[in-house]
Amino acid sequence: MERGASGASAGTPPVPGAEGVRGGRVAGGAHGPEHLRALTAIVLDTLADAAPARGGPLPAGGPEAVEQNTRALCSPVLPEEGVGPEAALGDVVRAIAEGAADPADPACVAHLHCPPLAVAAAADLAGAVLNPSMDSWDQAPAAGVIEELTTAALARLVHPAAPAPDALITSGGTESNLVALLLARERAAGGPLRVVTGANAHHSVHRAAWMLGLPAPAVVACDKGRIDPAALDRALTGLAGSPLLVVATAGTTDEGRIDPLPEIARIAERHTAQLHVDAAYGGPLLFSEHLAPRLAGLERAATVTFDLHKLGWQPVAAGVLAVADAGMLAPLSLRADYLNADDDTEAGLPDLLGRSIRTTRRPDALKMAVTFRALGRRGLGALVEHCVRTADEFGRAVDAHPRLRLRPGGIGISTVLFRPAVADALGDEAGDAVVAAVRRTLLAEGRAVLGRAVAEDGDGRSRLWLKATLLHPNAATADLLPLLDLVTAAADRALREASAAEGTEAPETERLSP
Amino acid sequence: MERGASGASAGTPPVPGAEGVRGGRVAGGAHGPEHLRALTAIVLDTLADAAPARGGPLPAGGPEAVEQNTRALCSPVLPEEGVGPEAALGDVVRAIAEGAADPADPACVAHLHCPPLAVAAAADLAGAVLNPSMDSWDQAPAAGVIEELTTAALARLVHPAAPAPDALITSGGTESNLVALLLARERAAGGPLRVVTGANAHHSVHRAAWMLGLPAPAVVACDKGRIDPAALDRALTGLAGSPLLVVATAGTTDEGRIDPLPEIARIAERHTAQLHVDAAYGGPLLFSEHLAPRLAGLERAATVTFDLHKLGWQPVAAGVLAVADAGMLAPLSLRADYLNADDDTEAGLPDLLGRSIRTTRRPDALKMAVTFRALGRRGLGALVEHCVRTADEFGRAVDAHPRLRLRPGGIGISTVLFRPAVADALGDEAGDAVVAAVRRTLLAEGRAVLGRAVAEDGDGRSRLWLKATLLHPNAATADLLPLLDLVTAAADRALREASAAEGTEAPETERLSP
Repeated sequence: MERGASGASAGTPPVPGAEGVRGGRVAGGAHGPEHLRALTAIVLDTLADAAPARGGPLPAGGPEAVEQNTRALCSPVLPEEGVGPEAALGDVVRAIAEGAADPADPACVAHLHCPPLAVAAAADLAGAVLNPSMDSWDQAPAAGVIEELTTAALARLVHPAAPAPDALITSGGTESNLVALLLARERAAGGPLRVVTGANAHHSVHRAAWMLGLPAPAVVACDKGRIDPAALDRALTGLAGSPLLVVATAGTTDEGRIDPLPEIARIAERHTAQLHVDAAYGGPLLFSEHLAPRLAGLERAATVTFDLHKLGWQPVAAGVLAVADAGMLAPLSLRADYLNADDDTEAGLPDLLGRSIRTTRRPDALKMAVTFRALGRRGLGALVEHCVRTADEFGRAVDAHPRLRLRPGGIGISTVLFRPAVADALGDEAGDAVVAAVRRTLLAEGRAVLGRAVAEDGDGRSRLWLKATLLHPNAATADLLPLLDLVTAAADRALREASAAEGTEAPETERLSP
Repeated sequence: MERGASGASAGTPPVPGAEGVRGGRVAGGAHGPEHLRALTAIVLDTLADAAPARGGPLPAGGPEAVEQNTRALCSPVLPEEGVGPEAALGDVVRAIAEGAADPADPACVAHLHCPPLAVAAAADLAGAVLNPSMDSWDQAPAAGVIEELTTAALARLVHPAAPAPDALITSGGTESNLVALLLARERAAGGPLRVVTGANAHHSVHRAAWMLGLPAPAVVACDKGRIDPAALDRALTGLAGSPLLVVATAGTTDEGRIDPLPEIARIAERHTAQLHVDAAYGGPLLFSEHLAPRLAGLERAATVTFDLHKLGWQPVAAGVLAVADAGMLAPLSLRADYLNADDDTEAGLPDLLGRSIRTTRRPDALKMAVTFRALGRRGLGALVEHCVRTADEFGRAVDAHPRLRLRPGGIGISTVLFRPAVADALGDEAGDAVVAAVRRTLLAEGRAVLGRAVAEDGDGRSRLWLKATLLHPNAATADLLPLLDLVTAAADRALREASAAEGTEAPETERLSP
């Protein structure tokens, strides 16, 4: 029988068994793309309509209004009889879009939550249709090669001088940190691994230690949001005798700070500690020749967390864990007869199984590969530089604003911390409450999605700040400036409301401004 | 300032900073869908062209040919200068599609690797564009509600009589099993948790125990691919005194077998052991009134793994972990000031953080919700029944085929094990080698993607079988029948080649058939 001549290879057949099941057609094969064309048109039309209907970065009305609208459009989510694909897509996509906090809006800047590039979202669609699963060659023949090319490029970017660097695709920074600690645990000999990290580390480092049954990490004090090398040295001395892993951060969640990596690498080496760097945020600085020097020392880490759904504009998930040497991945290797039987591997079928703690895996490398090819290293670098430059300009505008105060100490990567000046005129607690209220007011009104961070002020005290994490590759500084007046106006309202609640008169906010 | 009147809320602005970066436009906002329309058209055209170009369920030529074609189209994956979004999408999507093992082809039946529904893939696109991250309300206002509706429906499906059931979205069965063991570990008091599971359990159970620092699971013998209750009872007696977790399977990977759940639940209860059921494969039988009784006893499990990227036709990832009581999720709760500060939660912002071991999460519930609404419980049930019926019919056709042998003992869910009769005429080892060679030959020729499984034969001996895991919701039995002659022809070729390699004459295969 000729290939292609058999009924078994003729693509999607008619729907005999599923007759009468509306929406039961598959996306792949020869005919799937035709079905999809009609359905993706509904999706894109609905998205295009919803953004202006929402009228801002998120809907007005707060959680209750969103819940009401969403329930009205989506309930019951599992009816006895279906409503068909067109109606279901129309309603549920409308609900998620009208009720989105859309990072494509320049006023949506709370988190390391990026607006994905159109090219990446389009590539991701191909992955969803073909649905390769990255755990065996016979589910992902070409997808496996694309992943290999992508991870090889990332591995060389992070560890350019290593003879055999490698990288894994993960579901994000949390999984990357978990796998880094797992690999370190397995390398450790002579006692349980002790993890030493900064007070600025992401919570996932602590969670990973907990999950893996390791002692809670020792926490080292920070100086202006970065690990204090002297404190690290003391902590490692105190733990001498145990196998040690230092976890540093290149781009902290709260402040965008990069730990002093060269010094930390030297100290870790002196204590024969392994080094992991969580560069989930900062890693993509490497795409820019101009900014890469900020990550000097990164290449000395055994393992590096690197996320492309932050400064890489990928739809979630696009996590990476780079390792200095491919041999470090040995603890993940696994035999499962149905996926990588010895005789299949000997016969030349590539073994994909030992490259994740997951089994079935979406081809997240596909969207990365298409984005890399489309933009090139220079294009990616230019977008990273754009975000960093925008943040600097936004910071200067904050600094020049009479009723706002920029956090002293400079901008971390693309994260700008600031407060309305009225908050400074109050006590610490009341001031922080105003900052928190400003954020919630703007969220409830649907005007802006700002973040929050507790961070050291110029006087050494911890205060609450508004946080703008600027990741929009197309937004200009001018697009961001309206945020400043939104904040001061919301602060005035918050102050009036707080005063009214206390039955006192609102202070003249004008008088409070510096 | 009016909502919508500010530059900060006017959607995607022009691209000042990123000027000159082709492919640097975002997918969201008011203008993103227009960019996406052109790019998704390239994707769909490329997919439509590639399926006939491939000419079968996977490309001919084996790993080398696939690697060559993929590298030619995708290298260098990270060039210095980009090629632009259109060219990158055209080339890389062509590579992944031409080199796919497409589960939409009825001859692609190796694994629990389903062809996604068009409606689910279209819904997933909306998630990629809006990019909600499921770890805080201000990144996923409506997406959080959609997830809540979806998990509530799934929770009620699995534990209909429980007062407060709940469910988590996971990256797949492996993560579901990991979280189930983690929750059990945290519930355990008075010593480390001992996990007891069948020899038929998925490898992820063992891997989870290893990751969590638990003793290796005790393995209980199986009888015809299902846990032997007497052996389980003995194993639990032997471990008396330790906190215990029994892990049973509803739909084994190799044979589709469902462990005797009611009996296992009784035994576990008698030993005050917790019960987890890995129903990654079998769980969706619950959608069918007719088939749900096969899962009787499932509702007695504390935790249940349930995957919708298997018998639920979702693009990966669509994992679920159902728990009998929402309170069991307490160990996952977490405070991170930037995501769920106490005062924000008190002020009414929903806290999404304690619902995963991941932090940033894609809105995988979106595609599930759209599929559920589109098809309804009945429609999903009809598709599940279709797969089960097709497998029964395919099994009967195998049984009736003079040159094939169906594995004795019946079909498990939709998994059919069989061997070419010529393999039976050889010794055990040589026979198994022929079975493995048939699978590899068909893979290399691009004619069929069959699985493999070691399983007990009628004489009680373990043999290697070809495995057809029938998950295609549109393929009729007639579409699958060409596989039978493909297998016998490949067996003849494999036998001739093996004989030629040994310098002996090929046996008359006609004579060997029963």
